[in-house]
Amino acid sequence: MSLESDNFNQMPFTYKRVVRFQDTDAAGVVYFANVLSICHEAYEASLVAANINLKVFFTDSTAAMPIIHANVDFFRPLFCGDETRITLQPQQLSSDKFEIIYQVLGINDQLIAKAITRHVCINPSSRTKQALTEEIMSWLQFWRD
Amino acid sequence: MSLESDNFNQMPFTYKRVVRFQDTDAAGVVYFANVLSICHEAYEASLVAANINLKVFFTDSTAAMPIIHANVDFFRPLFCGDETRITLQPQQLSSDKFEIIYQVLGINDQLIAKAITRHVCINPSSRTKQALTEEIMSWLQFWRD
Amino acid sequence: MSLESDNFNQMPFTYKRVVRFQDTDAAGVVYFANVLSICHEAYEASLVAANINLKVFFTDSTAAMPIIHANVDFFRPLFCGDETRITLQPQQLSSDKFEIIYQVLGINDQLIAKAITRHVCINPSSRTKQALTEEIMSWLQFWRD
Amino acid sequence: MSLESDNFNQMPFTYKRVVRFQDTDAAGVVYFANVLSICHEAYEASLVAANINLKVFFTDSTAAMPIIHANVDFFRPLFCGDETRITLQPQQLSSDKFEIIYQVLGINDQLIAKAITRHVCINPSSRTKQALTEEIMSWLQFWRD
Repeated sequence: MSLESDNFNQMPFTYKRVVRFQDTDAAGVVYFANVLSICHEAYEASLVAANINLKVFFTDSTAAMPIIHANVDFFRPLFCGDETRITLQPQQLSSDKFEIIYQVLGINDQLIAKAITRHVCINPSSRTKQALTEEIMSWLQFWRD
Repeated sequence: MSLESDNFNQMPFTYKRVVRFQDTDAAGVVYFANVLSICHEAYEASLVAANINLKVFFTDSTAAMPIIHANVDFFRPLFCGDETRITLQPQQLSSDKFEIIYQVLGINDQLIAKAITRHVCINPSSRTKQALTEEIMSWLQFWRD
Repeated sequence: MSLESDNFNQMPFTYKRVVRFQDTDAAGVVYFANVLSICHEAYEASLVAANINLKVFFTDSTAAMPIIHANVDFFRPLFCGDETRITLQPQQLSSDKFEIIYQVLGINDQLIAKAITRHVCINPSSRTKQALTEEIMSWLQFWRD
Repeated sequence: MSLESDNFNQMPFTYKRVVRFQDTDAAGVVYFANVLSICHEAYEASLVAANINLKVFFTDSTAAMPIIHANVDFFRPLFCGDETRITLQPQQLSSDKFEIIYQVLGINDQLIAKAITRHVCINPSSRTKQALTEEIMSWLQFWRD
């Protein structure tokens, strides 16, 4: 068994987030679509942690990474004030696509929700696909090694 | 075989919605999770159309229908001011579950996005599963016949 | 003194809006900041009614009308499913500023909330003030006469 | 000069918040109403810091503190990724009312926005006014001394 095992350095990024009043709805729990927004916050935090400038990243006129697919499974409700931890693991899918797998964890690491977002790299003007940028390739690598 | 076949009267519910400034993000298009919120609006409108009182429905202490799964595929971007039409088709899955299939359509019925939400009927206090209520069974029937 | 007084034709714009589940919070009523968002929707609808293209208006690289002040008073709570009517009355304040006064009305025209947004015309790149555009001047006139 | 000076211990609560993609709109900056939501987050964080359970606080069937007035002045735009600091200073106004003054500060403590929320204590069922609870009185005291 060697230290250079394939998975040795894989370590998902973790983002802490307290559930806020605005996240909730009249049923008293977090509104379903807001769980995906919280996952996206974790993605943004992982970009910042890899030294990516968010303002530039999300308004770059040469490359954008819109979400082409998202899915989420809900296992337990979240209430206002709940402390959660979101782990994320990005993975390249092809030359122009990557996906991110998220786990939303609560107290004692109880699984609250699992989600996936799939992104494609495009030219924002023509909205045609193009190869993933070096920046996002580094970020993919960053959370792998 | 007659015109009054089983599917003759199936007609999806349609909800019209203009994209608003708040739906958008700094990339200039609708923020991904807001597409699911817009689909949920269509679900609410379909409940109202079937004479269900939304306030009572969403805060009923005897039965709630939380979403246990959602997924969405994005085919085209939506911009502020875009006029959309959301069609929805609900379907019972089991004694305690149903799902809704949504299509978000733009100008000339171009397909913008497709989404699914899956709901389970629970007792909101114990959060244990229970049979779908008569009310939601009627609603399922309403958009079938 | 004639009926055709200066104010004879002043008629506020009206926007109808049903309260949605996402607008609410765990206290069971509309989250306070969402009332301002609903007012902004009415503003957007009034722009559309005056033939202004929202996508162009909100991303125009030569002129933007950001909000520099907003205030809102809440008189009654709003619940999911409530049908509201928002009236708005815009008014020019100076060569580069205008404000909009909103009333959110419920059943039997009960006053739910009153709000004001104050806007300044700027160049979006330099973010320096500039005279209101002809387009917004026409809109101000539109809801006056 | 004595340690017991009236203002000696007054210290506003501070909440750190990074601007997220979802906070922004197609004009590329934070959507105006979201600045009030960010202020409310700071209020929630100050409640937690005073050992108040948010879930219980916001769904308490014996006392609620809805916002009856809010206002906000915007001095500078906020972009995705911007690091902000929100300071808040609560103050009792009468036996059943309090207000909170917020400052949203950016890099080098530049003033981004100022806001106020005014709250009244009510019985959530009857929605009639009642004296502020001991809990909120302690919180008011907490951020004073």
